Amino acid sequence: MISLTILGNNSALPAFGRFPTAQVLQDQDNSFLIDCGEGTQMQLSKYKIKRSKITHIFISHLHGDHYFGLVGLLTSMSLLNRTQELHVFGPAPLEAIIKMQLDAGEVNLSYQLFFHALTSSGMIANTNKMEVSCFPVNHRIACWGFLFKEKKNPRTVVPENARNFEIPASFYEQLQKGADYVNKKGTIIPNDAVTIANTAAKSYAYCADTIFDEGLAEVVRGVDLLYHETTYLKDQENKAKERFHSTSVQAATLASLANVKQLIIGHFSSKYENIEPFLTEAKTVFERTALAIDGSCFKV
Amino acid sequence: MISLTILGNNSALPAFGRFPTAQVLQDQDNSFLIDCGEGTQMQLSKYKIKRSKITHIFISHLHGDHYFGLVGLLTSMSLLNRTQELHVFGPAPLEAIIKMQLDAGEVNLSYQLFFHALTSSGMIANTNKMEVSCFPVNHRIACWGFLFKEKKNPRTVVPENARNFEIPASFYEQLQKGADYVNKKGTIIPNDAVTIANTAAKSYAYCADTIFDEGLAEVVRGVDLLYHETTYLKDQENKAKERFHSTSVQAATLASLANVKQLIIGHFSSKYENIEPFLTEAKTVFERTALAIDGSCFKV
Repeated sequence: MISLTILGNNSALPAFGRFPTAQVLQDQDNSFLIDCGEGTQMQLSKYKIKRSKITHIFISHLHGDHYFGLVGLLTSMSLLNRTQELHVFGPAPLEAIIKMQLDAGEVNLSYQLFFHALTSSGMIANTNKMEVSCFPVNHRIACWGFLFKEKKNPRTVVPENARNFEIPASFYEQLQKGADYVNKKGTIIPNDAVTIANTAAKSYAYCADTIFDEGLAEVVRGVDLLYHETTYLKDQENKAKERFHSTSVQAATLASLANVKQLIIGHFSSKYENIEPFLTEAKTVFERTALAIDGSCFKV
Repeated sequence: MISLTILGNNSALPAFGRFPTAQVLQDQDNSFLIDCGEGTQMQLSKYKIKRSKITHIFISHLHGDHYFGLVGLLTSMSLLNRTQELHVFGPAPLEAIIKMQLDAGEVNLSYQLFFHALTSSGMIANTNKMEVSCFPVNHRIACWGFLFKEKKNPRTVVPENARNFEIPASFYEQLQKGADYVNKKGTIIPNDAVTIANTAAKSYAYCADTIFDEGLAEVVRGVDLLYHETTYLKDQENKAKERFHSTSVQAATLASLANVKQLIIGHFSSKYENIEPFLTEAKTVFERTALAIDGSCFKV
């Protein structure tokens, strides 16, 4: 199971109590922070998400509403005596932006920070339970989306059963993939006697800030959860296009084209106090849509 | 009259709902922002302080808890189509930090931003109603305090009275300074017939982050309102010294030495959830002390 918590959903500047963009995706082992607008560290405290669990931070692009909270979070982790290494992924100029601010404050981080510049599509992180890849999206400046795919074997070993059949632990990896075991006497132990089926591996796609682009449907096809921005309502389609953003209906259209299981929409322009119309409009095209409200949690 | 609103009071990292350091000093014309920790723009909204009234921003030093909210505020002002010029004062490296982030986001500000590097003590800003000077304080990295002095003539002209005596407007400036008027017939119009006495000009000193330094007493002598940091309680005097910070009792001692009218203490370490003991301890030395609580407003 993976779960996604929304820490901020507003476009450009904070408004109506809505924070700029940040999200946390969590699996059993790790927390992955996706974008880090100003105030993200306050939101992490508010929603009781442990900073120490965050091992990877992904920054989509260098508009401030997506990263102005980053250096504050990095230095706070150090003030809290973090020792575990941290991996930050983002557009290349971000490295110098971080370094200049650490240098100005004469800060020596208490942990190792690895910066990974995003340069081309493909896998960028690979943990025990998750594969993360990035893909370019079409915005005013260089901007990346992120695709998270859970890594799961089709079967889970029931150790007690495996021990009863005297199957060595060295064979467990094969069992997880579905293989039967043949013991020294030549007896076949069928796989399903010592394993149980896993639920399917889940996936999440974050499309960052983007103009409506049908081509993205191929990239995010069939994901369990899709985040697509909806800076404007449908009557502002021209403005959305001009600013390389999308509307409610465009986000829902992309979800429909990509045949995803569920859609989350966010990045609402600060000109909208009431964001319910985004949901109403999106649902006319794609019923399984939810608003990315600060603090809301989506379990997949 | 001047009024000071506290937007943040916490040291190093936000904790217990307390934001990092930021304050706004307001006179009748202008708002002066002093330090700008992460989340300052949210705090401005929360406490209904108009961003558009801010004409000057003073950054004491380049530890993140004093300026990580700055670039977000600058870009938000631009997104709100500010046209009025803005003056930012701070340590020299801040200029490149701002520029690098604006460049990375391809941001062209909607207004003129003037950056003034702090290099030596003395007057740095001079508006119709306020003179602002800076002075160095002793912290781990280069750090500046700020002294705000209201500019006020001793007298205010009552225009109706002045017109009755046919005093030309060109003489009003003299009247404000207390001069009598002699009309064409040689008649003396006594000053107090056409003016009223002003209240005294008020002053505010912000000592930023500093080790306890008796020498500061001379710099801030007799101000109406003094802000002095109190990162630690008195039992942590050694730690305070080691980290170039001050204790509750040291802040109060400085206020007493400088014979100020009122003391505000803040910059509480995030290890303290309850900050009331800071007040209790400080008051044993200087009774007229108040806590710099987020949202509190001090009118002088």
